Amino acid sequence: MHVQDGASSAASNLQDEKYPPHVHLDGRVTFRFKAPMAQRVQIEPVNGQPENNGYNGLGKAPYDMTRDEHGLWTVTTPPAVPGLHAYWLVVDGVRVNDTATKSYGGRAKACGVEVPEPGVDFYDIKDVPHGQVRMQWYYSKVTEAWRRAFVYTPPDYDDNREQRYPVFILRHGGGEDETSWVEQGRANFIVDNLIAEGKAKPMIVVMDWGQAPTPGQPLLHIPSTPPPPEMTQVTVKELIPMVDATFRTIPDREHRAMAGLSMGSVQTLYIGLTNLDTFSYLGIFSRRPMSAAEFNVAQSFGGVFTDAAAFKQQVRLFWWGAGTAEEGIYNATKADLAELAKAGIESVFVEFPGTSHEWQTWRKSLYDFAPRLFRR
Amino acid sequence: MHVQDGASSAASNLQDEKYPPHVHLDGRVTFRFKAPMAQRVQIEPVNGQPENNGYNGLGKAPYDMTRDEHGLWTVTTPPAVPGLHAYWLVVDGVRVNDTATKSYGGRAKACGVEVPEPGVDFYDIKDVPHGQVRMQWYYSKVTEAWRRAFVYTPPDYDDNREQRYPVFILRHGGGEDETSWVEQGRANFIVDNLIAEGKAKPMIVVMDWGQAPTPGQPLLHIPSTPPPPEMTQVTVKELIPMVDATFRTIPDREHRAMAGLSMGSVQTLYIGLTNLDTFSYLGIFSRRPMSAAEFNVAQSFGGVFTDAAAFKQQVRLFWWGAGTAEEGIYNATKADLAELAKAGIESVFVEFPGTSHEWQTWRKSLYDFAPRLFRR
Repeated sequence: MHVQDGASSAASNLQDEKYPPHVHLDGRVTFRFKAPMAQRVQIEPVNGQPENNGYNGLGKAPYDMTRDEHGLWTVTTPPAVPGLHAYWLVVDGVRVNDTATKSYGGRAKACGVEVPEPGVDFYDIKDVPHGQVRMQWYYSKVTEAWRRAFVYTPPDYDDNREQRYPVFILRHGGGEDETSWVEQGRANFIVDNLIAEGKAKPMIVVMDWGQAPTPGQPLLHIPSTPPPPEMTQVTVKELIPMVDATFRTIPDREHRAMAGLSMGSVQTLYIGLTNLDTFSYLGIFSRRPMSAAEFNVAQSFGGVFTDAAAFKQQVRLFWWGAGTAEEGIYNATKADLAELAKAGIESVFVEFPGTSHEWQTWRKSLYDFAPRLFRR
Repeated sequence: MHVQDGASSAASNLQDEKYPPHVHLDGRVTFRFKAPMAQRVQIEPVNGQPENNGYNGLGKAPYDMTRDEHGLWTVTTPPAVPGLHAYWLVVDGVRVNDTATKSYGGRAKACGVEVPEPGVDFYDIKDVPHGQVRMQWYYSKVTEAWRRAFVYTPPDYDDNREQRYPVFILRHGGGEDETSWVEQGRANFIVDNLIAEGKAKPMIVVMDWGQAPTPGQPLLHIPSTPPPPEMTQVTVKELIPMVDATFRTIPDREHRAMAGLSMGSVQTLYIGLTNLDTFSYLGIFSRRPMSAAEFNVAQSFGGVFTDAAAFKQQVRLFWWGAGTAEEGIYNATKADLAELAKAGIESVFVEFPGTSHEWQTWRKSLYDFAPRLFRR
């Protein structure tokens, strides 16, 4: 392998395959793939939906690779936006995954390539105390199935045995699962670093699977629609009681937050706003545009927006964020928040320049959101 | 999708892709893949090395798939041996991964298809108390890198706060990583079930990465050779002290076991037998054949086999296991144990009829080995 100008093996590569993607200092990514018999090989960025402008930090459209005389196909992208970008190999017209890189996602796996952001390291593992991420299994009577939650406990959890902690329910997006916020989002390192710097309070972060299919029911595929009632029931009636029974939590609404990205942000709206006896801090990361019927200031979520004073009393933080490159989401969010402001509903909106519907936006969302929690 | 005779979606499938493999009641597996432009599509079982007869429970050689008029390729294998079998798709001569199934492995990912064994459920999740699996990060001065261990804590760990537990270091095989014993082997469910039945003592099971590359050093690829000294140092001087400092262990040799599969079994031999002040129970799961120089009763492992009385005093359990279908391994193990017996070295050998160099052998090995631990 010959890569010029200081390109280095991407952090998401499996360590010693022959042809993992290489990231150049300027953010260009070189992909290679050996396929002597193939007629056409492409790299396809896994794009978002039309409403967020189909944008992926690697680009919008598939890249055609060029074959050399040995059957090694190569392409170098233009400089990519920083972050973890999902891609497929397309071999003779079919999407497949590279065996040389990690694949992610709960539904249809896709490979990932991590493009670093110069000078940004808040999501890297550092020489600070580290919390644990604990796999916790529990049985759901609602779905008649075992579930696995990933539960982050802060670094001092096992030492301060009388200490109790607030709880933050953090949900992934469509097609992902309970592993995503750790394996792709690096949520545990972000919270470790925030706690070490004194910027966030020690907290328990609960990452559960954002699907609740009953036997024979399909998974949820339309991330902008309301979650099925089973998802709300699992979250409020099963997950949270299990966490309160298993971990040393402060089990009241003032010490519970919920946030989610994309599909998870819609769940946060529906589950959070209709269960304000359970939650008092809400984070809406990159919410996909909802229809006028779904997001209606006068009627949605049990009419919670109609009494601004009561809302302010109950919701300690109503945080929204989006990347400027996920244009459909960014524009819809700004429009909806303007409507809410007219109704007297206060919120925080944070925009992330140049990032899209991808993990870099959500890592930055978490980094901004978590320090604001549990301040009363 | 039309599958006759009660075929069901394999447990390893991602839940709702169009063409995941289906497992028939008799163990046959039907694979489908949509690739209208491809000239040839195959399913290739990921085979072992020649010394274990190149056998995979799906078969030895690639299966050619047949194309229908819509470009959907299909093949049904003969009845497979039960277990989790690794496979690649081969599209026009290149190995790739299916986006419809989970992929596993630390080095080159491969997809997996789980073929159930009728009447066998010791590795399934059951309605018993469940331990946690905790991701624990620690810094290695030896390798100058952060490492992640998966640590199983038994179901009563957080409730019985004065209780201390024995420690079992459980290592994966070549090309795998710290996730493998949980995600593929289901070690946590196996130990949960054994503890619930009163067959095994509550214990802490430590699953660390079986590689210790220093900066710039490649990973270990020849599973039958001795581990590099760094791997021993990380295990004995860093991992075990970290575990003893972090968890409520009984930190002495009488309460420590080590076992591993394939490459991990060789590590168990080298690390365990040269550190008998640290370990007293050893498990050798499917050890690949070693050369006469590497496995030499008179000389290997510091001559530990030359004093049978001292060996018996120190090694409370010297357990070996292999599947009868991994013939090279099975035969080499029996031959080497016969040599050891001549030298007066006592061991336990358990064979698993019909299973090969695959997870079903190692799940059964763990299920037999763990109940024998910490009985003094």
